[in-house]
Amino acid sequence: MKVLFTGGVKSGKSALAEQYILSLCDKKPYYLATTECLDEAMDQRILIHQQRRGEQFITLEEPLDIIAAIEFCDQPVLIECMTMWINNMLYHEKEETIFPILEQVCHLPHDLIFVHNEVGLGILPENALARKFADIAGLAGQLLAKYCDEVYFCTAGLKQRFK
Amino acid sequence: MKVLFTGGVKSGKSALAEQYILSLCDKKPYYLATTECLDEAMDQRILIHQQRRGEQFITLEEPLDIIAAIEFCDQPVLIECMTMWINNMLYHEKEETIFPILEQVCHLPHDLIFVHNEVGLGILPENALARKFADIAGLAGQLLAKYCDEVYFCTAGLKQRFK
Amino acid sequence: MKVLFTGGVKSGKSALAEQYILSLCDKKPYYLATTECLDEAMDQRILIHQQRRGEQFITLEEPLDIIAAIEFCDQPVLIECMTMWINNMLYHEKEETIFPILEQVCHLPHDLIFVHNEVGLGILPENALARKFADIAGLAGQLLAKYCDEVYFCTAGLKQRFK
Repeated sequence: MKVLFTGGVKSGKSALAEQYILSLCDKKPYYLATTECLDEAMDQRILIHQQRRGEQFITLEEPLDIIAAIEFCDQPVLIECMTMWINNMLYHEKEETIFPILEQVCHLPHDLIFVHNEVGLGILPENALARKFADIAGLAGQLLAKYCDEVYFCTAGLKQRFK
Repeated sequence: MKVLFTGGVKSGKSALAEQYILSLCDKKPYYLATTECLDEAMDQRILIHQQRRGEQFITLEEPLDIIAAIEFCDQPVLIECMTMWINNMLYHEKEETIFPILEQVCHLPHDLIFVHNEVGLGILPENALARKFADIAGLAGQLLAKYCDEVYFCTAGLKQRFK
Repeated sequence: MKVLFTGGVKSGKSALAEQYILSLCDKKPYYLATTECLDEAMDQRILIHQQRRGEQFITLEEPLDIIAAIEFCDQPVLIECMTMWINNMLYHEKEETIFPILEQVCHLPHDLIFVHNEVGLGILPENALARKFADIAGLAGQLLAKYCDEVYFCTAGLKQRFK
């Protein structure tokens, strides 16, 4: 089974996805953190996420090769988050492999819960990289949603089922 | 009863919230305007809002101490809007009391209709203050939604019930 | 019949609107492209859209006078997209006729499918023109939704009926 939680910044999508996967599992599920610690503000955010996860997850950290990380797992995996992974792939100049990898991930036999960030509902900045990022993130959301059995749009801590 | 209307700029959330509270009340409800007039563009917006309200509301203006303003009310109160109040609290360096006050407001016995602005569904600007504002506004939306009996997501002048 | 597809950048709204109108028509529907080719990145986008349309549409191109373009049509018309048309109207200093024209379009007897871009759910940029654009785009979405029989909010390639 594949499930997508999408929504804006601080929409509650991470907490909702965590509740969802915990209700699914008898054993500890995996938490695949894709964030690279590049600055202090990020460190702060990561710390807050880690504290909420507590002892309930087996945490893996992998900013790029998510397939290798998932293949190893014998329980459902929460991937937090796909937009950060896209960001890392762009940063490391691996843009051309983003969609092939996404396709592969969606065809893995594992139960996967994807957290994804909606970034395309505001005025686009003039910055060309930001525009490209918005395009890729939006298309990635479409691809994930196509393969997912359930898709939830999150806002104000509430999830709304869109598929 | 507590009700939340959330949505983007010009999504129609204010008009929908006004219709909602008017359909609820026999007597004139209160309209708590949190906007401080800081520039002319704002004056314009405020004027448009005031004209729509017409004679149907008792208008109160309070940019910061919303609890004091609400406590005085003996009819349902529409608070327009929470994101502007957050903005004022940040501007006046009262950040650390935002969430305690929100908790208190949600525990008041009054019927309250909150208007809130979704700001987290676009590319975040690089400006650190804007990022902080987006985080706080998103978390405030979650807190309000948790306590509200009904939550509506507004877009294109239509309200969709999310709770 | 009038139908509105609204959503963010790369939300899948164009493809969903195209599927919708094709399922509606026995004969080839019209595709009214409002985009003016102003730079190469746009050329690229237009090309991608054209390729997806293939041989299934009669394509019209009109950046400003959409009423003249529609009046000529004897089959349903997909207008792609309204926000680009608003952008063109602002660029050519025809702001004051935007809403009168929108009203007229909504009263045409034709079956019309509108594609519209949600831009008001992020942090607004400081740029005054961008703010004005967000306001006008949001109000235009409200006006279109008021006259439309069906309104779909699109995200991650999924459409959710809001009216």
